[in-house]
Amino acid sequence: MKSYHVNIGAGLDGMVMKEHDMLVPGPREVLVRVRACSLSFRELMILFLGFYPLPVRPDVIPVSDGAGEVVAVGLGVTRVKVGDRVAGTVFPYWLDGPYTRDTAAQLGGSHDGMLTEYALLPEEGVVPIPEHLSFEESAALPCAAVTAWNALTGGLPLLAGDTVLTLGSGGVSLFALQFAKCFGTRVIATTSSEKKAERLKMLGADAVVNYRTTPDWSVAVRELTGGRGVDHVIEVGGPSTIVQSIKATRVLGEVALVGLVTDPKASPDTGVHRATTAGLVTLRSIAVGSRAQFLAMNRAIAVNGLKPIIDRVFPFEEAKAAYQYYQEAQPFGKVIISQS
Amino acid sequence: MKSYHVNIGAGLDGMVMKEHDMLVPGPREVLVRVRACSLSFRELMILFLGFYPLPVRPDVIPVSDGAGEVVAVGLGVTRVKVGDRVAGTVFPYWLDGPYTRDTAAQLGGSHDGMLTEYALLPEEGVVPIPEHLSFEESAALPCAAVTAWNALTGGLPLLAGDTVLTLGSGGVSLFALQFAKCFGTRVIATTSSEKKAERLKMLGADAVVNYRTTPDWSVAVRELTGGRGVDHVIEVGGPSTIVQSIKATRVLGEVALVGLVTDPKASPDTGVHRATTAGLVTLRSIAVGSRAQFLAMNRAIAVNGLKPIIDRVFPFEEAKAAYQYYQEAQPFGKVIISQS
Amino acid sequence: MKSYHVNIGAGLDGMVMKEHDMLVPGPREVLVRVRACSLSFRELMILFLGFYPLPVRPDVIPVSDGAGEVVAVGLGVTRVKVGDRVAGTVFPYWLDGPYTRDTAAQLGGSHDGMLTEYALLPEEGVVPIPEHLSFEESAALPCAAVTAWNALTGGLPLLAGDTVLTLGSGGVSLFALQFAKCFGTRVIATTSSEKKAERLKMLGADAVVNYRTTPDWSVAVRELTGGRGVDHVIEVGGPSTIVQSIKATRVLGEVALVGLVTDPKASPDTGVHRATTAGLVTLRSIAVGSRAQFLAMNRAIAVNGLKPIIDRVFPFEEAKAAYQYYQEAQPFGKVIISQS
Amino acid sequence: MKSYHVNIGAGLDGMVMKEHDMLVPGPREVLVRVRACSLSFRELMILFLGFYPLPVRPDVIPVSDGAGEVVAVGLGVTRVKVGDRVAGTVFPYWLDGPYTRDTAAQLGGSHDGMLTEYALLPEEGVVPIPEHLSFEESAALPCAAVTAWNALTGGLPLLAGDTVLTLGSGGVSLFALQFAKCFGTRVIATTSSEKKAERLKMLGADAVVNYRTTPDWSVAVRELTGGRGVDHVIEVGGPSTIVQSIKATRVLGEVALVGLVTDPKASPDTGVHRATTAGLVTLRSIAVGSRAQFLAMNRAIAVNGLKPIIDRVFPFEEAKAAYQYYQEAQPFGKVIISQS
Repeated sequence: MKSYHVNIGAGLDGMVMKEHDMLVPGPREVLVRVRACSLSFRELMILFLGFYPLPVRPDVIPVSDGAGEVVAVGLGVTRVKVGDRVAGTVFPYWLDGPYTRDTAAQLGGSHDGMLTEYALLPEEGVVPIPEHLSFEESAALPCAAVTAWNALTGGLPLLAGDTVLTLGSGGVSLFALQFAKCFGTRVIATTSSEKKAERLKMLGADAVVNYRTTPDWSVAVRELTGGRGVDHVIEVGGPSTIVQSIKATRVLGEVALVGLVTDPKASPDTGVHRATTAGLVTLRSIAVGSRAQFLAMNRAIAVNGLKPIIDRVFPFEEAKAAYQYYQEAQPFGKVIISQS
Repeated sequence: MKSYHVNIGAGLDGMVMKEHDMLVPGPREVLVRVRACSLSFRELMILFLGFYPLPVRPDVIPVSDGAGEVVAVGLGVTRVKVGDRVAGTVFPYWLDGPYTRDTAAQLGGSHDGMLTEYALLPEEGVVPIPEHLSFEESAALPCAAVTAWNALTGGLPLLAGDTVLTLGSGGVSLFALQFAKCFGTRVIATTSSEKKAERLKMLGADAVVNYRTTPDWSVAVRELTGGRGVDHVIEVGGPSTIVQSIKATRVLGEVALVGLVTDPKASPDTGVHRATTAGLVTLRSIAVGSRAQFLAMNRAIAVNGLKPIIDRVFPFEEAKAAYQYYQEAQPFGKVIISQS
Repeated sequence: MKSYHVNIGAGLDGMVMKEHDMLVPGPREVLVRVRACSLSFRELMILFLGFYPLPVRPDVIPVSDGAGEVVAVGLGVTRVKVGDRVAGTVFPYWLDGPYTRDTAAQLGGSHDGMLTEYALLPEEGVVPIPEHLSFEESAALPCAAVTAWNALTGGLPLLAGDTVLTLGSGGVSLFALQFAKCFGTRVIATTSSEKKAERLKMLGADAVVNYRTTPDWSVAVRELTGGRGVDHVIEVGGPSTIVQSIKATRVLGEVALVGLVTDPKASPDTGVHRATTAGLVTLRSIAVGSRAQFLAMNRAIAVNGLKPIIDRVFPFEEAKAAYQYYQEAQPFGKVIISQS
Repeated sequence: MKSYHVNIGAGLDGMVMKEHDMLVPGPREVLVRVRACSLSFRELMILFLGFYPLPVRPDVIPVSDGAGEVVAVGLGVTRVKVGDRVAGTVFPYWLDGPYTRDTAAQLGGSHDGMLTEYALLPEEGVVPIPEHLSFEESAALPCAAVTAWNALTGGLPLLAGDTVLTLGSGGVSLFALQFAKCFGTRVIATTSSEKKAERLKMLGADAVVNYRTTPDWSVAVRELTGGRGVDHVIEVGGPSTIVQSIKATRVLGEVALVGLVTDPKASPDTGVHRATTAGLVTLRSIAVGSRAQFLAMNRAIAVNGLKPIIDRVFPFEEAKAAYQYYQEAQPFGKVIISQS
């Protein structure tokens, strides 16, 4: 069996494929034949930026997100059986409740990830995938979709009729847009081009604000709510957008901070305290989500027949090209590495 | 100006129309030209059953639900202005947070209701109605729709992908079905006829169980969820359905008890404790909802372009016929008394 | 090593001690030298009543509650180390969030329990015990104390100044009384004798109602709250007390149902629906609690220097006498089986 | 009757006493003979800083906090009666649920305040005061105590065993310390002097960190929690403390931002976003609290026999001296202006 391996900050040249003996599941473990995986911003941080807020072990198999079939199970496994179609969870020991340092082990970081032919995972670290989704589509879910789900549903309750603000067209934002529309909310999205604006509207965005042509986009967003402000912001922009995100939010509305994507070289981080207290807003930090949230999200995806947006699919052998494309091409939707 | 007046248990013969001098709003009061009102089960309890769990004052103007235009405002009114299209709230002093005995004053009970040409209401006891709704449609909201909204959103959070069980086709159940579909949930409804089943499916019900032909309907509902049980029940049936409702519910799912519609002559109330603890279920009692919930619901109605289901509209002069029809005809949707 | 073994309904004669080879922890498992365990009502159900709502495997080592030292750990164990003082959790795979059927495996039921010299447990199924508690005191916690903690803190938030109602002087009720006092609440307890009333007051009960001399004790409890009703009931009595418990509760107060202790031969279960809707009350079913709740409870115990109430301690060799005493003596506090 | 009057930014010289005709309560209004009022930071902002985030009407009677007796009631008043001992609520129309712009009317700001012999208030804008408190003690509650209560109980549930961090010895911080101890939590306080540290310990602080001698006090606080971080911070320091407050907080712990006390001339507000996402923390803004929170707090005060900490009492005639003392003396506890 083959796997890719990386070291933090090694860059594409440092990414190597290795041949291994076949893995055998121990007690409470399952062996998954990986059929597809997907790239998230964390993979760029690890490979190119050389900065990641959680431990990355040397020579790790990268990529947190993947899906495949269970091909063997160890002693005492009760949650899945051979033949089940599953996805891995980013934090394989975070089952339910809030994130804790206790459950911080992470695929493609402290533990081997999914850019491999076969992955050995704890049984509680895999979830069944929706029947109507392919492996490629399911591989898009673990990081970006679960983060979007947690951002929307893990804090201030999301109600039909609420207004949700999403920023740009990254993976988390597109899933947030799709999920928010399932809940009967109104979605305002920001973007940098008219072409993307059109695509966001086709996905259900009720209004789109171009932050290039409208640098004070928070004012425009607020006007779109009749001055009241939005109920929820899925804040993925970090220092460059946080203050405007807060200003767009209604009194006691919630800004969900997708924290891990913060660029350490970003513009200075000023004015957040003042904006938060002036607007009487809540900021809530997010770290992907639990297994229980993944399962609940999958029910929402199944009941509503949702399909993840996929930009492009690369074969396993061209994983490096996939990384490069993901970094450079500003994809609209997920970049997938497939083994089907 | 004309109003109908009733005493508790007086029956149709005891319902009389009277002529009054025009009302003048005092400080913090508004005068509403009522354009439509709607009948709820509480009106039957008050007029025919002679039983109601809250005080009903003698010679009260009946009917809790109505909508119209603000035609005059008293000193210090800031929330609305003359010309605004509004509905009254059933509990005019219950603004937000949980129901308390402190805020139990109720239109068409302790206070005069809406079966009148002009109603005097505290300014906080009216809410703006959605622009796309007529007065007749808006008059359908205060009791049944707010109860359904509270039942769905006031306790265990409602998530896209959840399964919701509604019982029959009364006002609360139809609104619950419509709202639940807005949230991206799966809805299972019960009914007694194939004709109603068809109409429920047209409103979005994903599955319908006929409780006549399937007396053990809770088993059938549970099977429709793959054995897991439903997440939410909007329980309006009282003693005759409560145990099956609980048995249809998943572990730690929630049964919202629409309490006021309990018939005091109902079948014996047995087995609830056993079913609740055996199924590890939560029972939560509901009493309509607050002004804040009404406002949130109106946002959901507006964003999703929802229309209340109306069975039949009677003119103001035929209010007694409306009561009779509502009691006897098993309407599918609300019965409205219009003054437009 | 020695263990006791039972079959469901076998009675004391069917309880046998066996000699085994020493156990060896597999991956993610820990071996605990048990120093003490404690009896809960579930042990009586399993051994004497022959009724238990969850699976009990043949020849199981009984008793869900125990504490001891970690003496060996398997591969990959990170949460504890040899020498740690720990207690087992009743549901070893229920880590956080709500109880699910997925995590229903239970010590002394589907899995071997703690009435043994050595117990093999998954690493996530043990929690560190408070430093100021002995093994005997710590063994009192897993079932009764965690249930009381969940009943108080798992639903409607518990606030200083609230009034809490506890029933009798069983294990759950005494812990609920102690925890409730930590939170700055007022506690009303019921009991059947003046002697027990004195002991309950010494533990902090602000008022005690004798349900023998005051059969309509719910009226007395309500009067003690100035007519408002209590905020929280820890309902352990089942069919014989549930309706009065509900009647003692304030509007939108919460009755926590400690479900597993329901006696299947109890008095008829009637009037619960009517009382619940008339009083606008919430009923919430409880099944012990999660590992995360156990950890939070231990912090409360440590910060407040709480000590479990122990009625009597028996040596390991006299486990049968402990069962008999627990069943017959109406103990005030926990009955412990010690190996120290 | 006499009242003091101010204009925003007028300073002590601009504060004048005037004689008025006696006020008469209109419908739903009550007349209160004020017996004591207390000063909060907002009074300094209004009189001296000339900056306040909410409207201050010209020639307003200042001071949001006061207590006294009801001496007359208008038509339709049901919540209180003549002779009742009451305190005013800072936001007289904010009854329950979250703060909204709809209920932003504020005593001593948009509406006349309590530095007067008689105050006319809406009936829902007064709450009964605890029996064991004097008027002077009760006057200490409306702003500082309700803010502390909301900060502790309005977001992440507060549990016995949690660790709470309070900053300094202002009014909100002292109340937060007292309330937190009622809930069985551990309290860490910061201060600038050993003398104040002693007083904080006498009030129940379990540990005190001197931020003068320990400029990196967040590190010291974190060490005091064994590295885990505190569960709750009552953040009153604004830009000068916010980043350290966040750094002292555990993963998914909550920092309650007492927003209104932000000094507009404060040190630059930088690094908040980074600290929040790095620590996975929630920031929640606070604006005093609702009437319902005031009532719940009063129950906690009554059940636990709490007494507000009062630094010094001035007579009504020396109100200016009270302002001056409050501004200059760094009081430990509330400054009261009494009319008893």
